[in-house]
Amino acid sequence: MEGTDVTAAPGFFKPITGSVMPRFAGLATLMRLPYVQAHDPEFADVEIGLVGIPWDGGTTNRPGARHGPRQVRDISTMIRNVNRASGIAPFSLCNCADLGDTPVNPVDLMDSLARIETFFNGVCGAGIAPLSVGGDHLVSLPVMRAIVKQTGPLGMVHFDAHTDTWDGYFGGFKYTHGTPFRRAVEEGLLDPKRTVQIGIRGALYSDAEDTWGQEQGIRVIDIDEFNALGVEGTIAEARRVVGDGATYLSFDVDALDPVYAPGTGTPEIGGMTTLQAQHVVRGLQGLNLVGGDVVEVSPPFDPSGNTALVGATMMFEILCVLADSVRKRRG
Amino acid sequence: MEGTDVTAAPGFFKPITGSVMPRFAGLATLMRLPYVQAHDPEFADVEIGLVGIPWDGGTTNRPGARHGPRQVRDISTMIRNVNRASGIAPFSLCNCADLGDTPVNPVDLMDSLARIETFFNGVCGAGIAPLSVGGDHLVSLPVMRAIVKQTGPLGMVHFDAHTDTWDGYFGGFKYTHGTPFRRAVEEGLLDPKRTVQIGIRGALYSDAEDTWGQEQGIRVIDIDEFNALGVEGTIAEARRVVGDGATYLSFDVDALDPVYAPGTGTPEIGGMTTLQAQHVVRGLQGLNLVGGDVVEVSPPFDPSGNTALVGATMMFEILCVLADSVRKRRG
Amino acid sequence: MEGTDVTAAPGFFKPITGSVMPRFAGLATLMRLPYVQAHDPEFADVEIGLVGIPWDGGTTNRPGARHGPRQVRDISTMIRNVNRASGIAPFSLCNCADLGDTPVNPVDLMDSLARIETFFNGVCGAGIAPLSVGGDHLVSLPVMRAIVKQTGPLGMVHFDAHTDTWDGYFGGFKYTHGTPFRRAVEEGLLDPKRTVQIGIRGALYSDAEDTWGQEQGIRVIDIDEFNALGVEGTIAEARRVVGDGATYLSFDVDALDPVYAPGTGTPEIGGMTTLQAQHVVRGLQGLNLVGGDVVEVSPPFDPSGNTALVGATMMFEILCVLADSVRKRRG
Amino acid sequence: MEGTDVTAAPGFFKPITGSVMPRFAGLATLMRLPYVQAHDPEFADVEIGLVGIPWDGGTTNRPGARHGPRQVRDISTMIRNVNRASGIAPFSLCNCADLGDTPVNPVDLMDSLARIETFFNGVCGAGIAPLSVGGDHLVSLPVMRAIVKQTGPLGMVHFDAHTDTWDGYFGGFKYTHGTPFRRAVEEGLLDPKRTVQIGIRGALYSDAEDTWGQEQGIRVIDIDEFNALGVEGTIAEARRVVGDGATYLSFDVDALDPVYAPGTGTPEIGGMTTLQAQHVVRGLQGLNLVGGDVVEVSPPFDPSGNTALVGATMMFEILCVLADSVRKRRG
Amino acid sequence: MEGTDVTAAPGFFKPITGSVMPRFAGLATLMRLPYVQAHDPEFADVEIGLVGIPWDGGTTNRPGARHGPRQVRDISTMIRNVNRASGIAPFSLCNCADLGDTPVNPVDLMDSLARIETFFNGVCGAGIAPLSVGGDHLVSLPVMRAIVKQTGPLGMVHFDAHTDTWDGYFGGFKYTHGTPFRRAVEEGLLDPKRTVQIGIRGALYSDAEDTWGQEQGIRVIDIDEFNALGVEGTIAEARRVVGDGATYLSFDVDALDPVYAPGTGTPEIGGMTTLQAQHVVRGLQGLNLVGGDVVEVSPPFDPSGNTALVGATMMFEILCVLADSVRKRRG
Amino acid sequence: MEGTDVTAAPGFFKPITGSVMPRFAGLATLMRLPYVQAHDPEFADVEIGLVGIPWDGGTTNRPGARHGPRQVRDISTMIRNVNRASGIAPFSLCNCADLGDTPVNPVDLMDSLARIETFFNGVCGAGIAPLSVGGDHLVSLPVMRAIVKQTGPLGMVHFDAHTDTWDGYFGGFKYTHGTPFRRAVEEGLLDPKRTVQIGIRGALYSDAEDTWGQEQGIRVIDIDEFNALGVEGTIAEARRVVGDGATYLSFDVDALDPVYAPGTGTPEIGGMTTLQAQHVVRGLQGLNLVGGDVVEVSPPFDPSGNTALVGATMMFEILCVLADSVRKRRG
Repeated sequence: MEGTDVTAAPGFFKPITGSVMPRFAGLATLMRLPYVQAHDPEFADVEIGLVGIPWDGGTTNRPGARHGPRQVRDISTMIRNVNRASGIAPFSLCNCADLGDTPVNPVDLMDSLARIETFFNGVCGAGIAPLSVGGDHLVSLPVMRAIVKQTGPLGMVHFDAHTDTWDGYFGGFKYTHGTPFRRAVEEGLLDPKRTVQIGIRGALYSDAEDTWGQEQGIRVIDIDEFNALGVEGTIAEARRVVGDGATYLSFDVDALDPVYAPGTGTPEIGGMTTLQAQHVVRGLQGLNLVGGDVVEVSPPFDPSGNTALVGATMMFEILCVLADSVRKRRG
Repeated sequence: MEGTDVTAAPGFFKPITGSVMPRFAGLATLMRLPYVQAHDPEFADVEIGLVGIPWDGGTTNRPGARHGPRQVRDISTMIRNVNRASGIAPFSLCNCADLGDTPVNPVDLMDSLARIETFFNGVCGAGIAPLSVGGDHLVSLPVMRAIVKQTGPLGMVHFDAHTDTWDGYFGGFKYTHGTPFRRAVEEGLLDPKRTVQIGIRGALYSDAEDTWGQEQGIRVIDIDEFNALGVEGTIAEARRVVGDGATYLSFDVDALDPVYAPGTGTPEIGGMTTLQAQHVVRGLQGLNLVGGDVVEVSPPFDPSGNTALVGATMMFEILCVLADSVRKRRG
Repeated sequence: MEGTDVTAAPGFFKPITGSVMPRFAGLATLMRLPYVQAHDPEFADVEIGLVGIPWDGGTTNRPGARHGPRQVRDISTMIRNVNRASGIAPFSLCNCADLGDTPVNPVDLMDSLARIETFFNGVCGAGIAPLSVGGDHLVSLPVMRAIVKQTGPLGMVHFDAHTDTWDGYFGGFKYTHGTPFRRAVEEGLLDPKRTVQIGIRGALYSDAEDTWGQEQGIRVIDIDEFNALGVEGTIAEARRVVGDGATYLSFDVDALDPVYAPGTGTPEIGGMTTLQAQHVVRGLQGLNLVGGDVVEVSPPFDPSGNTALVGATMMFEILCVLADSVRKRRG
Repeated sequence: MEGTDVTAAPGFFKPITGSVMPRFAGLATLMRLPYVQAHDPEFADVEIGLVGIPWDGGTTNRPGARHGPRQVRDISTMIRNVNRASGIAPFSLCNCADLGDTPVNPVDLMDSLARIETFFNGVCGAGIAPLSVGGDHLVSLPVMRAIVKQTGPLGMVHFDAHTDTWDGYFGGFKYTHGTPFRRAVEEGLLDPKRTVQIGIRGALYSDAEDTWGQEQGIRVIDIDEFNALGVEGTIAEARRVVGDGATYLSFDVDALDPVYAPGTGTPEIGGMTTLQAQHVVRGLQGLNLVGGDVVEVSPPFDPSGNTALVGATMMFEILCVLADSVRKRRG
Repeated sequence: MEGTDVTAAPGFFKPITGSVMPRFAGLATLMRLPYVQAHDPEFADVEIGLVGIPWDGGTTNRPGARHGPRQVRDISTMIRNVNRASGIAPFSLCNCADLGDTPVNPVDLMDSLARIETFFNGVCGAGIAPLSVGGDHLVSLPVMRAIVKQTGPLGMVHFDAHTDTWDGYFGGFKYTHGTPFRRAVEEGLLDPKRTVQIGIRGALYSDAEDTWGQEQGIRVIDIDEFNALGVEGTIAEARRVVGDGATYLSFDVDALDPVYAPGTGTPEIGGMTTLQAQHVVRGLQGLNLVGGDVVEVSPPFDPSGNTALVGATMMFEILCVLADSVRKRRG
Repeated sequence: MEGTDVTAAPGFFKPITGSVMPRFAGLATLMRLPYVQAHDPEFADVEIGLVGIPWDGGTTNRPGARHGPRQVRDISTMIRNVNRASGIAPFSLCNCADLGDTPVNPVDLMDSLARIETFFNGVCGAGIAPLSVGGDHLVSLPVMRAIVKQTGPLGMVHFDAHTDTWDGYFGGFKYTHGTPFRRAVEEGLLDPKRTVQIGIRGALYSDAEDTWGQEQGIRVIDIDEFNALGVEGTIAEARRVVGDGATYLSFDVDALDPVYAPGTGTPEIGGMTTLQAQHVVRGLQGLNLVGGDVVEVSPPFDPSGNTALVGATMMFEILCVLADSVRKRRG
């Protein structure tokens, strides 16, 4: 399965090729990219930073997403260079690097949010577009806080089985992996009218559950509408909603059917296929993407690593459209 | 993933909400419903009884379905209140309860069939519509025996990879999980002309294998016809076959492709998706449903619990159309 | 493996026998005991309350112990009536019941500690001796707070790979599963001079790590001393340390070698065997035991359920000596 | 790990060597022996017949032992030629062969017992000493019925966590995997005064549970006495009990601690180690052994195959002492 | 699930029926066929030989396919007689047998290729059409070398995620599981203009990666074109490409989405479904098929055996069209 | 479980502490040490180099050890600073670093041996003592070749179930994981009279299998002698055999009972415990150790990672005695 890597010019920001070091060998970094920390001289040249957020303190059901970045790093060493479908070669377009994991605090939620935001303030402040791997979905919130300081309010293409716009939990608890996007709207990080949620499904707590989002103008494409629109129709609608403004892409692996991503905290049957998800992401090429994430990979619930393989591959798909966008902004 | 359960009025027959007790906590009952036994005063008010049948003595291949009810109970605590697609809120429509497990005898087949039938005689005699979780497919037979005493012969919508209408096994053995529906026709429980079998596939023992069923007038929609008809065509044909009479819904998880339900005794590749199955079940709303079951969940062959999640969710889908039917009969 | 249960007199507080309902069948309660809630009339008659504490918010490494009570309930249905070695029949000695799970809050540590303590205030205030299953080791702290209100400061026999007497974490964070017993000493719940820790091992953070405990007078029997003393010597020393006062027994499954309990958060190789642990617990018969717990069973790291089987069986061993103690105090 | 197999003279009854066909290759037969059926000409020359009994219809708890023979066959291809400890080379002492699996009937207990006995009547009638792999423990009963026709009543060395001498189950059901040896005594197959049970442990149903066996004169060495006597003391006592008469060796893998044999139906913690078991079996060299079995290997509860490896290796240990005995009887 | 096998006339080359020996019982041969070796008299009558090739020495990533034949043999005992969709009953059309495993050498690649080719020279030289199960994809090369001596250059229908036409690895290493078909073209075994590759996907090493194959005239239907053409369009194009000449069918299980075949060395998400693959294979009926293989089943990465079930069933689908072709050539 | 790391002075060669970055977070290096490559300026200051050798091309049975270094790196992040039993703090005694993985070639055995040796020539030539993690046992050979250039012939303490001194395989194949130490003796790398092998067990191919080693003067302490001597006696004998000369320590995880290390290629039941192994290694403090390895960790056969935890912890135990030795030689 390994051939000769004929075109990859050597360079600091190039992945290690499998023709020199087999893919199961060597220290694991995200997509075999160089590991660059803020104090390294190469940090200034990074254009896209791949980051792990090993934290699941916002999880109300099955924990384990804190272990996601480690396993995705491991399995992501199987990723290669060129997207066969789109022809995009992200590592040739932009300087990409693994920036390591953010600091986290497993026993304090608010402290963790602060540590994560501080890390991304450094990343985004250096002009680096972040592509993260979680971690539970609450980690999107501090990432967005950091990005917005550079870009202003964001549109979002959001893949998920759940809207994650609940108000609270157990009464007064406002920060869980079910609430990040209500908080993001309330904080002015997210423009609900430029937000589209794709793949929503599963039973509701109540028939009024979706009301708040509808009132804000969030566009929900639930799984039945997704299948009715088809991949092309969904792409068109998503592009229409987010328009030309700065846009974030958040991919919760539970958007996929659990057979593709059993290693997650809140699986819902009847989801989309990986191929559908790949096609929709590819169809977002040309949007003004400023960052993205893949969240809710929970290795303890899938020791086989298949969920992590899906997560790593979706991260590569997002990287391709993000690199295209970063390159175009750079001119 | 847990929001505020705003509309659920408190009441004895309401599931415990995840906003009070997290879904992984508390004793596991089916869908977090109250546990009601025949000697409890609330038994008289139950309209739909969820029942486990922990028995696999009819299994000729891989055993383990005896462990199905326990694991489905566990995972079914993730089920919520309102069907997003159909809008049905079964726990608001009817009084639902977990009636516990039937008695069984792991070392005697005929004794087990008698114990199971006796239990359901009590349930059905009290006017409760049964929704069971097995157990291997032979458990449908004693359930039907009990229902028919109240309703007369049944039509059936039957999801399965196999017709389960073989005559015998090893010569004279008439009761296995491959024979329940031939026995049911012979005993007059099941009207073959009002029976439709969906998803049949896999190699045959002989090319005459399906002859008996055809002669009885059973309508088989094998997996190729299912995909040719599509979900809507299948629904239409199923509704045509069973008509307005009392109808039973039996869902063998091996109707699904084994990737969705690996934890089963006789997997056959090339099956339907969970989303297809959900859509067909939803399309049966309005039938005169009097009971149903989900069978052949075998936890030892899927320690991850994903098969049980599929089983629990399909049980919820069936519950929605059953509750709608029960409510309409009640007027 | 199931025989006739000849001597068990029927009664409300008796486990369901496997000769009536097979052990894999029926709703799972701890050791098949009746489920009794505070508002039930039988609550007043309970002498020993088995309780689940489904929470792991104090975990700094691998999470999952929140799922412990559910799985231990399931597997504990394999427990029978009479301790072959000691002859103790706990369900004949005392009224035992499953009191269900405590409330918890997965996203707020301090709120969880308060909810757990409140629950146990109700239990202990009713004169019920608690035997809990966690949950991570921090759950012992609120249990002790509730017990101490009835008994005054406790001695403790503590089985663990770790002393759990660190001061803090990440600087100022005082409450983690590595700190409960320093907090308990500071709060006056635990008498360090009547505390013995058995099975301690694994590399240290620093060579001063044990200093605080030694200064308090905690007696540590590390794994090497444990093997040197042998089971009998360890029992004698433990009895000497705790003396006649009110004593708590806390059993962290990581005291055992990970082959016996792989499903735990912080495994350390080179631990004791289950048989050694069983013998030591049996050797504590006659102490003035007022409660106990089994903690750190983390099902996601052992899908096979073997760790839960070990946890359930150790819980039964503790129950035997606790029932003996409760009965003697009752006179 | 494969060396040159220098001494094995070629011959029909020799295992295929790993130096010609790697151990993971080729069709799996027990210990890579030739497969010989009753109609084959070589059948007349077989001295020890290895047989699978793929049946678990007597199981009252977790099923799956029907899959034992297949997995033990697979893993037994790792067995080599010479017992390092005893120097016994069984394949040089006797003509050994894999006789295949007995017929069984998964849906009828009594029919299965008849089919199994008939098969062994053929084996034992041909003067072949049987060494079986189950299957649940009830399979020992029909094997003993067949042997006894050749030998008269048997003594037995029985390794187990349970005595398997219960009277019945669910009232009148006399044949389960918990009753074979009471039936064997009642039928005159087994001489209770020449029977020793080693490793018994686990909680009792009642304190009178062992009475019947004691009255018959069965010698029980429970796990505590086993550890007190030590391997040598146990061997001496076992030899004293069974004496010089025809003796059967029955090895239930649940005699071992579950960490060695998790893949079994009724695990009990606190069992013996494989090394202890190997030593005791080796210490039985010189007894008048006429057959043996390894039972209760249940692959669905141990997908890793480690339990099967333990079963296959214990089968080899038994084969060594059985071959020594057969050879000596042959003269 | 087992019925009466009414039409199967008894005969040497018939599979053992599940109505006589349950499918989990008995020694495992491929599809329960008789095991026939070159020195057996029945060898001369075999028309289609099922063969295992237990070798993965060409694997550059995750090993384990050496264990494929053993596990496929085991699970293939679930295969029955008649293809429901096509009506083909292969065991009635042709004499089929399990020819066992080829010799292999786990520590020497070139020696293994020679041993495998020698084995197939014997098979093909006897006029037997081979249907193999690997092993990694390099095993197709020695099989083709043996077939071509009888048939001349082959066309091929090749299902795979990868083209396996790389030139070399690590510089000068020409033989890996990524290079067999470039070698086959260079050696004149494979006619590139009669070769079609279906299901190709995954990221590329470089954008020139596919150039060589295109220059040779190999027709690649990547996964996107496959879905665009649909099953029928793909069948038509495949039939057009390979025409009437002697044709080989090679099925790498990684052509399927990893949810269907996780147990493989180089999984790529976004693949075809088993049902699609079954339909395409059935659509090849009438081609001039002379042999086939199923490769890259790697049991260590799927202990559940589901991948092996898929492999065995695809092997049965290929057998059906191969038997039809062999029967037609026989006249 | 995480306390304050009070004594660890900051410094380049110190592990990252769990009080700053949780143990599940951050890129995985061996024991959280800095990653240092030959071209880094810090390379000159390294005293002990931890190295992965991701290769299993010498494996004749179950492959997968090529994945060992990656998983041991991951799990080794749980290792802390100070050996509780011996008081040794290796990271304070010596500059330790993770030197990464050696180059390997998965498809060519001899090329791999050359690449590995070249790597270690660089390490040993720089005066760094190597501590490796494999990989199959053949990897010890090129490591020893490199060490011997600095030290002259080595003594060895070798933990294993097998002697690994076979002559060849399949006739002329001299290099497999069963032959490294015969090759090492023949090449003059290993002084057989200063070699002790501990834990040897399992059936033999022939009763002459051990002859060659005995003739060379290798001291074998098989598992029975090991248990007879006890830990102290074994230590004394090992120290006597290897004396004061330069000594290598090779630890094959199959020396342990498979319950401790199921993830290995050739498991043999009846092995030593981890605690015994830890004690023996600790007892080697003071020998003139010049390097060591831990081999045969095969993750695909233990997805739980427990074998890797054992491997990492044994590596830490070896590191402690090696650091003590390196420090003493440094003076």
